[in-house]
Amino acid sequence: MQGVLDLPHHLLPLATTVAHALTRVEEVFDHQLASDLPPVTDLVKHIEHYRGKMLRPSLVIAVGLAAHPRITQTAPADYDQLLKHDHYVMGAVLEMVHMATLVHDDVLDEADTRRRGRTVNKLRGNEAAVILGDYLFAAAYHLCSTLPTNAAALAVGRASMVTAAGELMQLHHRDDFSVDEPTYYEIVARKTAELIATGAELGVLASYSGDASAKSNDAVRHAMARFGRCLGIAFQIQDDLLDLVGKENVVGKSVHKDVEKGKMTLPVIHHLANASPHQRGQTLMLLEHASGDVRHVAQQELVAALETTHSISASRASAAKFVDHAKQELTMIQDSPAKELLRVMADSVVGRAF
Amino acid sequence: MQGVLDLPHHLLPLATTVAHALTRVEEVFDHQLASDLPPVTDLVKHIEHYRGKMLRPSLVIAVGLAAHPRITQTAPADYDQLLKHDHYVMGAVLEMVHMATLVHDDVLDEADTRRRGRTVNKLRGNEAAVILGDYLFAAAYHLCSTLPTNAAALAVGRASMVTAAGELMQLHHRDDFSVDEPTYYEIVARKTAELIATGAELGVLASYSGDASAKSNDAVRHAMARFGRCLGIAFQIQDDLLDLVGKENVVGKSVHKDVEKGKMTLPVIHHLANASPHQRGQTLMLLEHASGDVRHVAQQELVAALETTHSISASRASAAKFVDHAKQELTMIQDSPAKELLRVMADSVVGRAF
Repeated sequence: MQGVLDLPHHLLPLATTVAHALTRVEEVFDHQLASDLPPVTDLVKHIEHYRGKMLRPSLVIAVGLAAHPRITQTAPADYDQLLKHDHYVMGAVLEMVHMATLVHDDVLDEADTRRRGRTVNKLRGNEAAVILGDYLFAAAYHLCSTLPTNAAALAVGRASMVTAAGELMQLHHRDDFSVDEPTYYEIVARKTAELIATGAELGVLASYSGDASAKSNDAVRHAMARFGRCLGIAFQIQDDLLDLVGKENVVGKSVHKDVEKGKMTLPVIHHLANASPHQRGQTLMLLEHASGDVRHVAQQELVAALETTHSISASRASAAKFVDHAKQELTMIQDSPAKELLRVMADSVVGRAF
Repeated sequence: MQGVLDLPHHLLPLATTVAHALTRVEEVFDHQLASDLPPVTDLVKHIEHYRGKMLRPSLVIAVGLAAHPRITQTAPADYDQLLKHDHYVMGAVLEMVHMATLVHDDVLDEADTRRRGRTVNKLRGNEAAVILGDYLFAAAYHLCSTLPTNAAALAVGRASMVTAAGELMQLHHRDDFSVDEPTYYEIVARKTAELIATGAELGVLASYSGDASAKSNDAVRHAMARFGRCLGIAFQIQDDLLDLVGKENVVGKSVHKDVEKGKMTLPVIHHLANASPHQRGQTLMLLEHASGDVRHVAQQELVAALETTHSISASRASAAKFVDHAKQELTMIQDSPAKELLRVMADSVVGRAF
């Protein structure tokens, strides 16, 4: 819960509700991945260290509360009564899908460090990492199919397709220094924001499921999905920034990977679009070296170049803009401490240093 | 349909029904994978060449017919009326899951050739192959969630978990020359046979779904799952044999990979258990070289060694035994040309040269 849920004092009772709920999510998560085969158990135990912010389950819970049809008639001390098994299952499903993509991403990125520990690929080889990711996907999908309706399974399946399609787009544009902002946002909306949007959407689904008295939830569901999507885009921009200017021991995962792997991030795209022809030429040379065989990019040189066009602060401003968009979607739901929590979560996505 | 469905003359009308059904399966498959993103479409088009035997969809269709509650009251010419959209969807789901595992297996095996074409990893890199596999898994899960009940989704999710667990077990035992037959069968039952068993099981599920008049199908479902499981084990033994003694241009995929990748196959396990101490020592040296840095194993030497213990023919006999076990499960269902088709399919699993 670090970072994403740094709550102001008057929301602390709500933090307890969310923390309890996340513990339930973890129980469902662990139960689903239990195996009697030692080679499976060992790997599953390893990735427990990956569990960090739990952004997606937190969204299921927080949106589940804030968008709940009975939220305004419920005292904050009784909020936990609004949550049910469906919320925990959906939270665990999304965390599992997310963890599967992390494990596979680390193979693709040849990353060594994740959440301050060694990556599965580094420790046990690419093969174990690929299969472990497949195991997590399968477990997530199986878990999702235990829910009373297929609505969540459809949403999770579709979101996983969109995520993979976004990653294929990103791969297609590797080392493509002509990527522009619209293309960047198309990729990011798919590869990062879709699953986060689904977290918000599933919160609504869980809170309305089995509630025959509730009015049609489509408008709320779509608004919350847009809330999550904007948040997800802001989250990715912050990730881009941390990869550029973060420190590995603070961020907790390998940094400076984006340039090395030829991934065009928002600060770099902004810089290339706004630099003088001379500066642009110099930066392109720097990028070509960085993504080629010369691995240890002169990171400081690159950051200095980005400063000439104020591209770091421009990217921070873009992230903040998406956080604002996200908050605007909250007008669709009634005021409550849970809604305030969503605002705090939105802010913390760009405030985080890891 | 090559190989798995080489039918005797009097079953040819039934072959037409199955062929039509597989065409429907392909339509569902293609429709589900359609994308408006060129990087996705290109890769999906490439793996269409992988489509070969379609064993799993064929099982959904053939078992769907043979175990259908109305099979004996239906004239063979009207068999196609027993099939419905659920059969095609389940067939497409299993083919998609299978294809995802193939794409990932080729990354793990560093294979160059699949169905006489270049593998995705060889052609487009490991990263594209890992993400494409994830896309196929997600698409399969999404498609499965469109079915009216969650029974198939639960079965497919569980089978995919078991398959991955089997692959992790296999990886755990890489280069482990002490693997015995029980361990081999444990691995194979999971990594290969489970998904094939699920194909047979889903055939029953589809044929009984929505049929309120049908008696409980549990006994039939379990018998057909056992039929598929035995078939799957026989299938894997035949795969082991083809990797050892098959020719790449006939098999259509990279051969001699098992020894190179330190995978213990049935013929090798049988040989090590039955060879003289001297011969055993020689073979172990051969295997150590083959799975180490010296890649080009003296394959002929190995096959010659296996012949000293008749391990090739002993493995063929084991495969045939599992085919017999499979056929015995068919006593649970009533006689029909469709049941005869299942017998032919069972035989062709070990008769195939690719």
